[in-house]
Amino acid sequence: MALSIDFRVRYAETDQMGVVHHAVYYVWFEQLRTEYFRKIGFPYGQLEEQGVFFPVVESRCEYKEGARYDGEVKVTGWFRKPRGVRVRIDYLVEQKGRVLVKGYTLHARADANGKPRRIPAEILEKIMEEAAPITEGPHLN
Amino acid sequence: MALSIDFRVRYAETDQMGVVHHAVYYVWFEQLRTEYFRKIGFPYGQLEEQGVFFPVVESRCEYKEGARYDGEVKVTGWFRKPRGVRVRIDYLVEQKGRVLVKGYTLHARADANGKPRRIPAEILEKIMEEAAPITEGPHLN
Amino acid sequence: MALSIDFRVRYAETDQMGVVHHAVYYVWFEQLRTEYFRKIGFPYGQLEEQGVFFPVVESRCEYKEGARYDGEVKVTGWFRKPRGVRVRIDYLVEQKGRVLVKGYTLHARADANGKPRRIPAEILEKIMEEAAPITEGPHLN
Amino acid sequence: MALSIDFRVRYAETDQMGVVHHAVYYVWFEQLRTEYFRKIGFPYGQLEEQGVFFPVVESRCEYKEGARYDGEVKVTGWFRKPRGVRVRIDYLVEQKGRVLVKGYTLHARADANGKPRRIPAEILEKIMEEAAPITEGPHLN
Repeated sequence: MALSIDFRVRYAETDQMGVVHHAVYYVWFEQLRTEYFRKIGFPYGQLEEQGVFFPVVESRCEYKEGARYDGEVKVTGWFRKPRGVRVRIDYLVEQKGRVLVKGYTLHARADANGKPRRIPAEILEKIMEEAAPITEGPHLN
Repeated sequence: MALSIDFRVRYAETDQMGVVHHAVYYVWFEQLRTEYFRKIGFPYGQLEEQGVFFPVVESRCEYKEGARYDGEVKVTGWFRKPRGVRVRIDYLVEQKGRVLVKGYTLHARADANGKPRRIPAEILEKIMEEAAPITEGPHLN
Repeated sequence: MALSIDFRVRYAETDQMGVVHHAVYYVWFEQLRTEYFRKIGFPYGQLEEQGVFFPVVESRCEYKEGARYDGEVKVTGWFRKPRGVRVRIDYLVEQKGRVLVKGYTLHARADANGKPRRIPAEILEKIMEEAAPITEGPHLN
Repeated sequence: MALSIDFRVRYAETDQMGVVHHAVYYVWFEQLRTEYFRKIGFPYGQLEEQGVFFPVVESRCEYKEGARYDGEVKVTGWFRKPRGVRVRIDYLVEQKGRVLVKGYTLHARADANGKPRRIPAEILEKIMEEAAPITEGPHLN
Protein backbone atom coordinates (compact mmCIF):
# COMPACT_ATOMS: atom_id res chain seq x y z
CA MET A 1 0.00 0.00 0.00
CA ALA A 2 1.00 3.61 -0.18
CA LEU A 3 -0.06 7.02 1.07
CA SER A 4 -0.07 10.31 -0.83
CA ILE A 5 -0.31 13.87 0.43
CA ASP A 6 -0.82 17.00 -1.66
CA PHE A 7 0.12 20.54 -0.71
CA ARG A 8 1.45 23.75 -2.20
CA VAL A 9 5.11 24.70 -2.38
CA ARG A 10 6.01 27.54 -0.01
CA TYR A 11 7.95 30.59 -1.16
CA ALA A 12 10.51 30.11 1.61
CA GLU A 13 11.26 26.66 0.21
CA THR A 14 12.69 28.07 -3.02
CA ASP A 15 16.24 29.31 -3.48
CA GLN A 16 17.81 31.72 -5.93
CA MET A 17 17.92 29.02 -8.63
CA GLY A 18 14.14 29.57 -8.77
CA VAL A 19 13.14 26.08 -7.65
CA VAL A 20 12.78 24.27 -4.34
CA HIS A 21 16.06 23.82 -2.43
CA HIS A 22 17.25 20.22 -2.53
CA ALA A 23 17.23 19.78 1.27
CA VAL A 24 13.53 20.64 1.49
CA TYR A 25 12.42 17.33 -0.03
CA TYR A 26 13.62 15.61 3.13
CA VAL A 27 11.27 17.83 5.13
CA TRP A 28 8.42 16.84 2.83
CA PHE A 29 9.31 13.16 3.28
CA GLU A 30 9.03 13.73 7.03
CA GLN A 31 5.62 15.30 6.59
CA LEU A 32 4.53 12.20 4.67
CA ARG A 33 5.80 10.00 7.52
CA THR A 34 3.87 12.07 10.05
CA GLU A 35 0.68 11.47 8.08
CA TYR A 36 1.45 7.82 7.55
CA PHE A 37 2.07 7.13 11.24
CA ARG A 38 -1.20 8.85 12.06
CA LYS A 39 -3.05 6.87 9.41
CA ILE A 40 -1.92 3.53 10.85
CA GLY A 41 -3.04 4.60 14.31
CA PHE A 42 0.25 5.70 15.88
CA PRO A 43 0.60 9.49 15.73
CA TYR A 44 4.32 10.13 15.93
CA GLY A 45 3.99 12.80 18.62
CA GLN A 46 2.33 10.22 20.89
CA LEU A 47 4.98 7.62 20.09
CA GLU A 48 7.68 10.04 21.27
CA GLU A 49 5.80 10.63 24.52
CA GLN A 50 5.90 6.85 25.02
CA GLY A 51 9.63 6.72 24.37
CA VAL A 52 9.31 5.32 20.86
CA PHE A 53 11.57 7.22 18.45
CA PHE A 54 12.46 6.47 14.84
CA PRO A 55 15.46 8.70 14.11
CA VAL A 56 16.74 8.77 10.55
CA VAL A 57 19.89 6.69 10.09
CA GLU A 58 20.15 7.12 6.33
CA SER A 59 18.59 9.42 3.75
CA ARG A 60 18.90 9.61 -0.01
CA CYS A 61 17.43 11.49 -2.95
CA GLU A 62 17.69 11.54 -6.72
CA TYR A 63 16.59 14.80 -8.30
CA LYS A 64 15.24 14.96 -11.86
CA GLU A 65 13.64 18.39 -11.80
CA GLY A 66 12.99 21.09 -9.24
CA ALA A 67 9.54 21.73 -7.80
CA ARG A 68 8.13 25.19 -8.44
CA TYR A 69 6.58 27.72 -6.07
CA ASP A 70 2.86 27.90 -5.60
CA GLY A 71 2.13 24.78 -7.59
CA GLU A 72 0.74 21.69 -5.91
CA VAL A 73 3.05 18.81 -5.27
CA LYS A 74 2.18 15.22 -4.48
CA VAL A 75 4.39 13.20 -2.18
CA THR A 76 3.79 9.45 -2.03
CA GLY A 77 5.40 7.06 0.43
CA TRP A 78 5.73 3.29 0.68
CA PHE A 79 6.64 1.50 3.91
CA ARG A 80 8.98 -1.44 3.37
CA LYS A 81 9.02 -4.56 5.54
CA PRO A 82 11.09 -3.78 8.68
CA ARG A 83 14.35 -5.67 9.26
CA GLY A 84 15.15 -5.91 12.95
CA VAL A 85 14.87 -2.41 14.41
CA ARG A 86 15.03 -0.79 10.98
CA VAL A 87 12.21 0.57 8.82
CA ARG A 88 12.61 2.00 5.35
CA ILE A 89 10.21 4.28 3.52
CA ASP A 90 10.50 5.09 -0.19
CA TYR A 91 9.18 8.35 -1.62
CA LEU A 92 8.16 9.89 -4.91
CA VAL A 93 7.56 13.60 -5.45
CA GLU A 94 5.44 14.70 -8.40
CA GLN A 95 4.21 18.02 -9.74
CA LYS A 96 1.81 18.36 -12.67
CA GLY A 97 2.16 14.65 -13.36
CA ARG A 98 5.95 14.77 -13.68
CA VAL A 99 8.23 12.80 -11.41
CA LEU A 100 10.62 15.29 -9.80
CA VAL A 101 12.37 13.40 -7.06
CA LYS A 102 12.77 9.85 -5.73
CA GLY A 103 14.21 9.06 -2.35
CA TYR A 104 14.14 7.01 0.79
CA THR A 105 14.83 7.29 4.48
CA LEU A 106 15.92 4.50 6.77
CA HIS A 107 14.99 4.64 10.44
CA ALA A 108 16.09 2.70 13.52
CA ARG A 109 13.80 2.44 16.49
CA ALA A 110 15.43 4.04 19.54
CA ASP A 111 14.41 5.00 23.07
CA ALA A 112 14.52 8.51 24.54
CA ASN A 113 18.27 8.15 25.12
CA GLY A 114 18.97 7.13 21.55
CA LYS A 115 19.57 3.46 22.42
CA PRO A 116 18.35 0.90 19.84
CA ARG A 117 15.20 -0.91 20.98
CA ARG A 118 12.80 -3.40 19.40
CA ILE A 119 9.89 -2.01 17.48
CA PRO A 120 6.84 -2.51 19.74
CA ALA A 121 4.85 -5.55 18.53
CA GLU A 122 1.62 -3.71 17.72
CA ILE A 123 3.46 -1.11 15.63
CA LEU A 124 5.53 -3.76 13.88
CA GLU A 125 2.38 -5.64 13.00
CA LYS A 126 0.75 -2.55 11.51
CA ILE A 127 3.82 -1.66 9.47
CA MET A 128 4.06 -5.27 8.22
CA GLU A 129 0.44 -5.06 7.07
CA GLU A 130 1.07 -1.74 5.38
CA ALA A 131 4.44 -2.66 3.86
CA ALA A 132 4.58 -2.67 0.06
CA PRO A 133 6.64 -5.17 -1.95
CA ILE A 134 9.64 -3.56 -3.63
CA THR A 135 7.98 -4.06 -6.99
CA GLU A 136 5.72 -1.16 -5.94
CA GLY A 137 6.97 2.39 -5.79
CA PRO A 138 10.52 3.61 -6.44
CA HIS A 139 13.38 1.73 -4.83
CA LEU A 140 16.82 3.34 -5.05
CA ASN A 141 19.69 0.98 -4.25
CA MET B 1 -12.92 40.01 5.41
CA ALA B 2 -10.35 37.44 6.35
CA LEU B 3 -8.91 34.14 5.18
CA SER B 4 -7.92 31.13 7.27
CA ILE B 5 -5.78 28.14 6.43
CA ASP B 6 -5.33 24.98 8.49
CA PHE B 7 -2.41 22.61 8.38
CA ARG B 8 -0.30 20.41 10.60
CA VAL B 9 2.94 21.49 12.26
CA ARG B 10 5.99 19.82 10.74
CA TYR B 11 8.63 18.11 12.85
CA ALA B 12 11.39 20.16 11.21
CA GLU B 13 9.64 23.32 12.41
CA THR B 14 10.25 22.51 16.08
CA ASP B 15 13.45 23.27 17.96
CA GLN B 16 14.99 21.76 21.10
CA MET B 17 12.65 23.81 23.30
CA GLY B 18 9.98 21.35 22.07
CA VAL B 19 7.83 23.91 20.28
CA VAL B 20 7.86 25.63 16.91
CA HIS B 21 10.85 27.93 16.32
CA HIS B 22 9.84 31.60 16.46
CA ALA B 23 11.04 32.38 12.91
CA VAL B 24 8.74 29.75 11.42
CA TYR B 25 5.58 31.79 12.03
CA TYR B 26 6.80 34.24 9.38
CA VAL B 27 6.92 31.35 6.91
CA TRP B 28 3.34 30.46 7.85
CA PHE B 29 2.28 34.08 7.36
CA GLU B 30 3.77 33.87 3.88
CA GLN B 31 1.81 30.71 3.16
CA LEU B 32 -1.36 32.57 4.17
CA ARG B 33 -0.46 35.39 1.77
CA THR B 34 0.10 32.91 -1.05
CA GLU B 35 -3.39 31.54 -0.50
CA TYR B 36 -4.91 34.98 -0.13
CA PHE B 37 -3.39 36.30 -3.36
CA ARG B 38 -4.68 33.21 -5.15
CA LYS B 39 -8.14 33.64 -3.63
CA ILE B 40 -8.45 37.22 -4.90
CA GLY B 41 -7.46 36.11 -8.39
CA PHE B 42 -3.78 37.07 -8.47
CA PRO B 43 -1.60 34.02 -7.79
CA TYR B 44 1.65 35.45 -6.50
CA GLY B 45 3.81 33.31 -8.81
CA GLN B 46 2.04 34.88 -11.80
CA LEU B 47 2.42 38.38 -10.36
CA GLU B 48 6.17 37.86 -10.17
CA GLU B 49 6.27 36.75 -13.80
CA GLN B 50 4.58 40.06 -14.65
CA GLY B 51 7.13 42.04 -12.64
CA VAL B 52 4.83 42.67 -9.70
CA PHE B 53 6.64 41.96 -6.42
CA PHE B 54 5.57 42.65 -2.85
CA PRO B 55 8.76 42.26 -0.79
CA VAL B 56 8.45 42.46 2.98
CA VAL B 57 9.59 45.82 4.36
CA GLU B 58 8.60 45.18 7.95
CA SER B 59 7.63 42.13 10.00
CA ARG B 60 6.56 41.70 13.59
CA CYS B 61 5.29 39.00 15.95
CA GLU B 62 4.11 38.69 19.52
CA TYR B 63 4.35 35.19 20.94
CA LYS B 64 2.06 33.95 23.70
CA GLU B 65 2.64 30.22 23.42
CA GLY B 66 4.53 27.88 21.13
CA ALA B 67 2.76 25.70 18.57
CA ARG B 68 3.24 21.96 19.01
CA TYR B 69 4.25 19.28 16.55
CA ASP B 70 1.67 17.26 14.73
CA GLY B 71 -1.26 19.31 15.95
CA GLU B 72 -3.32 21.36 13.53
CA VAL B 73 -2.80 25.09 13.48
CA LYS B 74 -5.04 27.75 12.03
CA VAL B 75 -3.51 30.87 10.52
CA THR B 76 -5.87 33.74 9.74
CA GLY B 77 -4.96 36.88 7.81
CA TRP B 78 -6.57 40.29 7.30
CA PHE B 79 -5.58 42.62 4.47
CA ARG B 80 -5.53 46.27 5.52
CA LYS B 81 -6.30 49.17 3.20
CA PRO B 82 -3.12 49.94 1.18
CA ARG B 83 -1.40 53.29 1.67
CA GLY B 84 0.48 54.33 -1.45
CA VAL B 85 2.64 51.38 -2.53
CA ARG B 86 2.31 49.71 0.87
CA VAL B 87 0.05 46.86 1.94
CA ARG B 88 -0.22 45.48 5.44
CA ILE B 89 -1.56 42.08 6.48
CA ASP B 90 -2.30 41.13 10.08
CA TYR B 91 -2.16 37.54 11.28
CA LEU B 92 -3.37 35.32 14.08
CA VAL B 93 -2.12 31.81 14.78
CA GLU B 94 -4.28 29.45 16.81
CA GLN B 95 -4.00 25.86 17.96
CA LYS B 96 -6.77 23.98 19.77
CA GLY B 97 -8.68 27.24 20.12
CA ARG B 98 -5.84 29.07 21.88
CA VAL B 99 -4.25 32.17 20.42
CA LEU B 100 -0.52 31.49 20.11
CA VAL B 101 0.86 34.32 18.03
CA LYS B 102 -0.18 37.67 16.59
CA GLY B 103 1.78 39.47 13.92
CA TYR B 104 1.86 41.51 10.79
CA THR B 105 3.91 42.05 7.68
CA LEU B 106 4.17 45.24 5.67
CA HIS B 107 4.91 45.04 1.95
CA ALA B 108 5.88 47.60 -0.67
CA ARG B 109 5.13 46.95 -4.31
CA ALA B 110 8.36 46.79 -6.31
CA ASP B 111 9.40 45.82 -9.84
CA ALA B 112 11.87 43.07 -10.76
CA ASN B 113 14.78 45.41 -9.93
CA GLY B 114 13.43 46.24 -6.48
CA LYS B 115 12.31 49.74 -7.47
CA PRO B 116 9.08 51.00 -5.83
CA ARG B 117 6.14 51.00 -8.28
CA ARG B 118 2.42 51.70 -8.00
CA ILE B 119 0.19 48.79 -7.17
CA PRO B 120 -1.54 47.88 -10.47
CA ALA B 121 -5.11 49.28 -10.45
CA GLU B 122 -6.95 45.96 -10.70
CA ILE B 123 -4.97 44.48 -7.81
CA LEU B 124 -5.41 47.60 -5.71
CA GLU B 125 -9.15 47.46 -6.30
CA LYS B 126 -9.35 43.83 -5.20
CA ILE B 127 -7.29 44.44 -2.06
CA MET B 128 -9.48 47.49 -1.22
CA GLU B 129 -12.56 45.27 -1.51
CA GLU B 130 -10.99 42.63 0.65
CA ALA B 131 -9.46 44.99 3.23
CA ALA B 132 -10.78 44.64 6.78
CA PRO B 133 -11.26 47.61 9.12
CA ILE B 134 -8.75 47.63 11.98
CA THR B 135 -11.56 46.80 14.37
CA GLU B 136 -11.39 43.30 12.90
CA GLY B 137 -8.53 40.95 13.63
CA PRO B 138 -5.42 41.69 15.68
CA HIS B 139 -3.59 44.96 15.08
CA LEU B 140 -0.20 45.36 16.74
CA ASN B 141 1.04 48.93 16.84
CA MET C 1 28.69 47.87 24.39
CA ALA C 2 27.92 45.72 21.42
CA LEU C 3 29.01 42.49 19.75
CA SER C 4 29.46 41.81 16.04
CA ILE C 5 29.73 38.53 14.17
CA ASP C 6 30.69 38.06 10.53
CA PHE C 7 29.83 35.10 8.33
CA ARG C 8 28.91 34.24 4.77
CA VAL C 9 25.35 33.98 3.48
CA ARG C 10 24.33 30.40 2.71
CA TYR C 11 22.74 29.41 -0.58
CA ALA C 12 19.82 27.75 1.23
CA GLU C 13 19.05 31.10 2.87
CA THR C 14 18.12 32.73 -0.45
CA ASP C 15 14.73 32.48 -2.12
CA GLN C 16 13.63 32.88 -5.72
CA MET C 17 13.70 36.69 -5.40
CA GLY C 18 17.50 36.22 -5.44
CA VAL C 19 18.14 37.56 -1.94
CA VAL C 20 17.97 36.20 1.59
CA HIS C 21 14.47 35.22 2.75
CA HIS C 22 13.08 37.71 5.28
CA ALA C 23 12.60 35.10 8.04
CA VAL C 24 16.29 34.16 7.98
CA TYR C 25 17.39 37.39 9.67
CA TYR C 26 15.70 36.17 12.85
CA VAL C 27 17.90 33.08 12.72
CA TRP C 28 20.95 35.31 12.36
CA PHE C 29 19.82 37.39 15.34
CA GLU C 30 19.66 34.17 17.33
CA GLN C 31 23.17 33.29 16.27
CA LEU C 32 24.31 36.68 17.55
CA ARG C 33 22.58 36.00 20.89
CA THR C 34 24.29 32.63 21.17
CA GLU C 35 27.66 34.33 20.73
CA TYR C 36 26.75 37.15 23.09
CA PHE C 37 25.63 34.83 25.90
CA ARG C 38 28.87 32.89 25.51
CA LYS C 39 30.93 36.09 25.55
CA ILE C 40 29.43 37.22 28.88
CA GLY C 41 30.18 33.84 30.41
CA PHE C 42 26.78 32.12 30.17
CA PRO C 43 26.67 29.79 27.14
CA TYR C 44 22.98 29.45 26.32
CA GLY C 45 23.14 25.66 26.04
CA GLN C 46 24.36 25.51 29.65
CA LEU C 47 21.68 27.95 30.80
CA GLU C 48 19.00 25.65 29.38
CA GLU C 49 20.50 22.67 31.24
CA GLN C 50 20.10 24.74 34.43
CA GLY C 51 16.47 25.54 33.64
CA VAL C 52 17.15 29.10 32.51
CA PHE C 53 15.34 29.84 29.24
CA PHE C 54 14.86 33.11 27.40
CA PRO C 55 12.10 32.40 24.87
CA VAL C 56 11.29 35.13 22.38
CA VAL C 57 8.10 37.02 23.27
CA GLU C 58 8.33 39.60 20.52
CA SER C 59 10.34 40.00 17.32
CA ARG C 60 10.52 42.72 14.73
CA CYS C 61 12.46 43.68 11.61
CA GLU C 62 12.66 46.52 9.14
CA TYR C 63 14.14 45.56 5.78
CA LYS C 64 15.93 48.08 3.57
CA GLU C 65 17.71 45.72 1.20
CA GLY C 66 18.19 41.98 0.85
CA ALA C 67 21.46 40.28 1.73
CA ARG C 68 23.14 38.43 -1.15
CA TYR C 69 24.52 34.92 -1.37
CA ASP C 70 28.16 34.22 -0.73
CA GLY C 71 28.95 37.72 0.45
CA GLU C 72 29.97 38.36 4.04
CA VAL C 73 27.40 39.87 6.37
CA LYS C 74 27.98 41.54 9.70
CA VAL C 75 25.36 41.23 12.44
CA THR C 76 25.73 43.50 15.46
CA GLY C 77 23.69 43.27 18.64
CA TRP C 78 23.10 45.57 21.63
CA PHE C 79 21.71 44.30 24.93
CA ARG C 80 19.28 46.75 26.52
CA LYS C 81 18.79 47.12 30.27
CA PRO C 82 16.38 44.35 31.43
CA ARG C 83 12.99 45.31 32.83
CA GLY C 84 11.71 42.73 35.26
CA VAL C 85 12.01 39.34 33.57
CA ARG C 86 12.39 40.89 30.13
CA VAL C 87 15.52 41.50 28.07
CA ARG C 88 15.64 43.23 24.73
CA ILE C 89 18.38 43.00 22.12
CA ASP C 90 18.59 45.30 19.10
CA TYR C 91 20.28 44.22 15.88
CA LEU C 92 21.78 45.66 12.74
CA VAL C 93 22.66 43.64 9.64
CA GLU C 94 25.20 45.06 7.20
CA GLN C 95 26.77 43.85 3.97
CA LYS C 96 29.55 45.70 2.15
CA GLY C 97 29.05 48.65 4.49
CA ARG C 98 25.36 49.05 3.69
CA VAL C 99 22.69 48.72 6.36
CA LEU C 100 20.27 46.01 5.21
CA VAL C 101 18.08 45.27 8.19
CA LYS C 102 17.31 46.59 11.66
CA GLY C 103 15.42 44.61 14.24
CA TYR C 104 14.97 43.54 17.81
CA THR C 105 13.85 40.60 19.87
CA LEU C 106 12.31 40.74 23.32
CA HIS C 107 12.78 37.79 25.67
CA ALA C 108 11.22 36.78 28.97
CA ARG C 109 13.08 34.55 31.35
CA ALA C 110 11.18 31.28 31.88
CA ASP C 111 11.81 27.92 33.53
CA ALA C 112 11.73 24.55 31.78
CA ASN C 113 7.92 24.55 31.95
CA GLY C 114 7.61 27.97 30.37
CA LYS C 115 6.71 29.72 33.64
CA PRO C 116 8.09 33.26 34.10
CA ARG C 117 10.96 33.38 36.58
CA ARG C 118 13.38 36.06 37.76
CA ILE C 119 16.59 36.45 35.84
CA PRO C 120 19.29 34.88 38.05
CA ALA C 121 21.23 37.66 39.83
CA GLU C 122 24.65 36.90 38.33
CA ILE C 123 23.23 36.89 34.79
CA LEU C 124 21.24 40.06 35.42
CA GLU C 125 24.38 41.77 36.69
CA LYS C 126 26.35 40.80 33.59
CA ILE C 127 23.61 41.96 31.23
CA MET C 128 23.33 45.26 33.14
CA GLU C 129 27.07 45.77 32.68
CA GLU C 130 26.84 44.96 29.01
CA ALA C 131 23.64 46.91 28.33
CA ALA C 132 23.97 49.82 25.89
CA PRO C 133 22.03 53.09 26.25
CA ILE C 134 19.36 53.48 23.58
CA THR C 135 21.41 56.27 22.03
CA GLU C 136 23.69 53.48 20.77
CA GLY C 137 22.64 51.14 18.01
CA PRO C 138 19.27 51.02 16.24
CA HIS C 139 16.12 51.18 18.32
CA LEU C 140 12.84 50.50 16.54
CA ASN C 141 9.78 51.59 18.46
CA MET D 1 43.15 17.09 -0.94
CA ALA D 2 40.34 18.20 1.28
CA LEU D 3 38.86 21.30 2.85
CA SER D 4 37.44 21.72 6.36
CA ILE D 5 35.24 24.43 7.83
CA ASP D 6 34.37 24.93 11.49
CA PHE D 7 31.34 26.73 12.85
CA ARG D 8 28.84 26.59 15.68
CA VAL D 9 25.49 24.81 15.52
CA ARG D 10 22.55 27.22 15.45
CA TYR D 11 19.57 26.87 17.76
CA ALA D 12 17.17 26.96 14.82
CA GLU D 13 18.93 23.90 13.39
CA THR D 14 17.83 21.68 16.27
CA ASP D 15 14.47 19.94 16.50
CA GLN D 16 12.47 18.62 19.44
CA MET D 17 14.62 15.48 19.58
CA GLY D 18 17.26 17.84 21.00
CA VAL D 19 19.78 17.43 18.19
CA VAL D 20 20.27 18.89 14.71
CA HIS D 21 17.51 18.02 12.24
CA HIS D 22 18.69 15.47 9.67
CA ALA D 23 18.01 17.74 6.65
CA VAL D 24 20.33 20.45 7.99
CA TYR D 25 23.49 18.47 7.21
CA TYR D 26 22.76 18.98 3.51
CA VAL D 27 22.80 22.73 4.12
CA TRP D 28 26.15 22.39 5.85
CA PHE D 29 27.49 20.36 2.90
CA GLU D 30 26.43 23.21 0.65
CA GLN D 31 28.29 25.69 2.84
CA LEU D 32 31.40 23.54 2.47
CA ARG D 33 30.98 23.58 -1.34
CA THR D 34 30.63 27.35 -1.31
CA GLU D 35 33.95 27.62 0.54
CA TYR D 36 35.61 25.02 -1.66
CA PHE D 37 34.59 26.72 -4.92
CA ARG D 38 35.92 30.01 -3.56
CA LYS D 39 39.18 28.37 -2.48
CA ILE D 40 39.86 26.99 -5.97
CA GLY D 41 39.24 30.42 -7.47
CA PHE D 42 35.66 30.09 -8.72
CA PRO D 43 33.24 31.67 -6.24
CA TYR D 44 29.92 29.96 -6.91
CA GLY D 45 27.96 33.22 -7.02
CA GLN D 46 30.18 34.37 -9.90
CA LEU D 47 29.83 31.04 -11.69
CA GLU D 48 26.05 31.44 -11.64
CA GLU D 49 26.34 34.93 -13.12
CA GLN D 50 28.32 33.33 -15.97
CA GLY D 51 25.66 30.67 -16.52
CA VAL D 52 27.59 27.89 -14.83
CA PHE D 53 25.35 25.98 -12.43
CA PHE D 54 26.00 22.75 -10.54
CA PRO D 55 22.57 21.62 -9.33
CA VAL D 56 22.42 18.60 -7.04
CA VAL D 57 21.31 15.46 -8.85
CA GLU D 58 21.79 13.08 -5.95
CA SER D 59 22.33 13.44 -2.21
CA ARG D 60 22.91 10.93 0.54
CA CYS D 61 23.71 10.79 4.25
CA GLU D 62 24.41 8.23 6.92
CA TYR D 63 23.78 9.43 10.45
CA LYS D 64 25.63 7.99 13.45
CA GLU D 65 24.88 10.66 16.04
CA GLY D 66 23.19 14.04 16.12
CA ALA D 67 25.13 17.28 16.37
CA ARG D 68 24.38 19.41 19.43
CA TYR D 69 23.53 23.06 19.77
CA ASP D 70 26.19 25.62 20.47
CA GLY D 71 29.06 23.19 20.05
CA GLU D 72 31.52 23.56 17.20
CA VAL D 73 31.22 21.22 14.27
CA LYS D 74 33.79 20.47 11.61
CA VAL D 75 32.65 19.67 8.08
CA THR D 76 35.25 18.28 5.70
CA GLY D 77 34.76 17.75 1.96
CA TRP D 78 36.63 15.85 -0.76
CA PHE D 79 36.14 16.54 -4.46
CA ARG D 80 36.17 13.38 -6.57
CA LYS D 81 37.39 13.23 -10.15
CA PRO D 82 34.54 14.45 -12.44
CA ARG D 83 32.97 12.02 -14.89
CA GLY D 84 31.57 13.82 -17.90
CA VAL D 85 29.38 16.66 -16.61
CA ARG D 86 29.18 15.15 -13.13
CA VAL D 87 31.12 16.05 -9.99
CA ARG D 88 30.87 14.28 -6.67
CA ILE D 89 31.85 15.60 -3.27
CA ASP D 90 32.09 13.44 -0.15
CA TYR D 91 31.60 14.87 3.32
CA LEU D 92 32.32 14.10 6.94
CA VAL D 93 30.78 15.92 9.91
CA GLU D 94 32.53 15.78 13.26
CA GLN D 95 31.90 17.25 16.69
CA LYS D 96 34.31 16.91 19.62
CA GLY D 97 36.36 14.43 17.61
CA ARG D 98 33.42 12.08 16.98
CA VAL D 99 32.21 11.27 13.49
CA LEU D 100 28.51 12.16 13.36
CA VAL D 101 27.57 12.00 9.71
CA LYS D 102 28.97 10.86 6.36
CA GLY D 103 27.47 11.85 3.05
CA TYR D 104 27.91 12.90 -0.51
CA THR D 105 26.29 15.03 -3.17
CA LEU D 106 26.48 14.50 -6.91
CA HIS D 107 26.20 17.51 -9.21
CA ALA D 108 25.71 17.90 -12.96
CA ARG D 109 26.86 21.03 -14.69
CA ALA D 110 23.92 22.87 -16.25
CA ASP D 111 23.27 26.23 -17.91
CA ALA D 112 20.79 28.85 -16.71
CA ASN D 113 17.94 26.87 -18.31
CA GLY D 114 18.88 23.65 -16.58
CA LYS D 115 20.33 22.05 -19.73
CA PRO D 116 23.38 19.82 -19.23
CA ARG D 117 26.60 21.49 -20.43
CA ARG D 118 30.29 20.62 -20.31
CA ILE D 119 32.23 21.73 -17.30
CA PRO D 120 34.32 24.73 -18.49
CA ALA D 121 37.91 23.59 -19.08
CA GLU D 122 39.59 25.84 -16.50
CA ILE D 123 37.18 24.71 -13.78
CA LEU D 124 37.53 21.06 -14.76
CA GLU D 125 41.30 21.38 -14.57
CA LYS D 126 41.15 22.88 -11.07
CA ILE D 127 38.76 20.23 -9.80
CA MET D 128 40.98 17.48 -11.30
CA GLU D 129 43.96 18.94 -9.42
CA GLU D 130 41.96 19.11 -6.22
CA ALA D 131 40.27 15.71 -6.56
CA ALA D 132 41.11 13.17 -3.87
CA PRO D 133 41.47 9.43 -4.57
CA ILE D 134 38.62 7.40 -3.08
CA THR D 135 41.06 5.94 -0.58
CA GLU D 136 40.89 9.35 1.12
CA GLY D 137 37.81 10.49 3.01
CA PRO D 138 34.52 8.63 3.37
CA HIS D 139 32.96 7.09 0.28
CA LEU D 140 29.43 5.75 0.61
CA ASN D 141 28.37 3.44 -2.20
